[in-house]
Amino acid sequence: MMRFGFDIGGTNIAAGVIDERDQLVAKDSVRFPCGEGNQAVIDACAGLYRKILDQNAIPEQAIAGVGVAVPGSVSPREGVVVDAHNLGFHHTPLASMLSDVLKKPVALINDADAATLAEHRIGALKGTQTAMLITIGTGIGGGLILNGELFRGGRDNGTEPGHMVLRNGGRLCSCGINGCAETYCSATRLGKDGAAFGKQNAREVIEAAKEGNEQALALFGAYIDDFGSYIASIINLLDPERIAIGGGVSGAGSFLLDPLRADAEKKCFFETCPEIVIASAGNDAGIIGAGLIVS
Amino acid sequence: MMRFGFDIGGTNIAAGVIDERDQLVAKDSVRFPCGEGNQAVIDACAGLYRKILDQNAIPEQAIAGVGVAVPGSVSPREGVVVDAHNLGFHHTPLASMLSDVLKKPVALINDADAATLAEHRIGALKGTQTAMLITIGTGIGGGLILNGELFRGGRDNGTEPGHMVLRNGGRLCSCGINGCAETYCSATRLGKDGAAFGKQNAREVIEAAKEGNEQALALFGAYIDDFGSYIASIINLLDPERIAIGGGVSGAGSFLLDPLRADAEKKCFFETCPEIVIASAGNDAGIIGAGLIVS
Repeated sequence: MMRFGFDIGGTNIAAGVIDERDQLVAKDSVRFPCGEGNQAVIDACAGLYRKILDQNAIPEQAIAGVGVAVPGSVSPREGVVVDAHNLGFHHTPLASMLSDVLKKPVALINDADAATLAEHRIGALKGTQTAMLITIGTGIGGGLILNGELFRGGRDNGTEPGHMVLRNGGRLCSCGINGCAETYCSATRLGKDGAAFGKQNAREVIEAAKEGNEQALALFGAYIDDFGSYIASIINLLDPERIAIGGGVSGAGSFLLDPLRADAEKKCFFETCPEIVIASAGNDAGIIGAGLIVS
Repeated sequence: MMRFGFDIGGTNIAAGVIDERDQLVAKDSVRFPCGEGNQAVIDACAGLYRKILDQNAIPEQAIAGVGVAVPGSVSPREGVVVDAHNLGFHHTPLASMLSDVLKKPVALINDADAATLAEHRIGALKGTQTAMLITIGTGIGGGLILNGELFRGGRDNGTEPGHMVLRNGGRLCSCGINGCAETYCSATRLGKDGAAFGKQNAREVIEAAKEGNEQALALFGAYIDDFGSYIASIINLLDPERIAIGGGVSGAGSFLLDPLRADAEKKCFFETCPEIVIASAGNDAGIIGAGLIVS
């Protein structure tokens, strides 16, 4: 049967339908009704659901169920969003609220976990038993595949890889701790440090580095040294088969990947370094991963 | 049936027999024949095996098989010690060499993994599905329990948690990389930094800190800050139920555990921090864990 996936973000609600072969066959999005309360979010989701089914002539009875990815912590068993700050959800019983309106079973998942599931099923992590997706954006997200399945954390809290400590005592992270990987390996770091020589964001820093700008190259080199050590930490703990890099910075492709691989290989304790690749499930990974959790 | 376990170290070969309830019922040890070649090690193991069985009136046919723990990397499937520097083993087919002499099936395991298995079966990690043993000694060793079983690494390389990077660019580690957790959280670090005020090793530093020596207290405080960040990194990645601390430094008990818990709790990203406890399987964990891998 087909499955419906929502990827709810603080700016847009994206959604779509995946078929029996896990392929996205329809999708659309609406603006997230910011600050208008939980009922407005439910209404927006319900409207988007009906619109996608109608416009693609998909009958409701063809949908087995609905999966929802949110940027925050969820309790999958209870169907509750524990905390998703950007959405205004705190201990919100989102699964039952949506299920009441859509008349379908609804399951929840963290958005980084959804992306990891999509990478594992149809993307860069396909075929792996032990692997990780690391998403580099404003912050750092990610998910783990262990024993061939999505790992939801030992206590159902999931994983927060951006808050591994990379430079203890270093830069203050938004979480209040000094030296988290997020403060050194996120796109935000490149933008912040690039401001010293007039660059406004990670993309501009990377463009300047590609053009041979010395300050940008020095910054990018320092970034690779931090990112390589971060990846080596994960490798030396879990010995994964493959690590996929996603998010905006991964758009730099081999300009990022080649030096990153060389740095991580140097710091990998084992005889051989696992594969390090660019994530391939794309921007729809959240929708697809959300659809994949429908049982 | 009963099982026989060897824990081969660079100083001693310890060995013993575990019964059907995983209890150690007999043990003994001999000096490791350092620099005398592989055959001398096999002879020493065979002699110790016969001696333990004879002295305890255990018939050979009561032993189902033999497990061997070594300080180094092993290939369990091939029965080969890939590299155990302190033992002089490099790509050594130890399982078949011992099996030929003892006339029993022989399985190999890394010593930190053996200790983890013992903690999980009879010690501080009993009953957990997701947990870690961290052993603090000259270096840092450890092992992971994932999905209720010993995790042997995604590519069979095991785990090398001492080489997670804690202070990127920091102190040079014996592995050649700067800033590994091992250079900040091992007993060696306490001994090295304690030399500045006349202390010879971690034990002396901890004793002085307990007595209120200001330099020792400052050093111990810095050590706790590093150790807490290290544990928080593992917590934030894996969300384990429990972490057990073993090795010499863990002998400090609550003097170590109380500030360590407080520090890790502060740096844990989740609402609640997992349990942090002292390992309890003791010095025989390696022998017991080796015996436990006999199928």
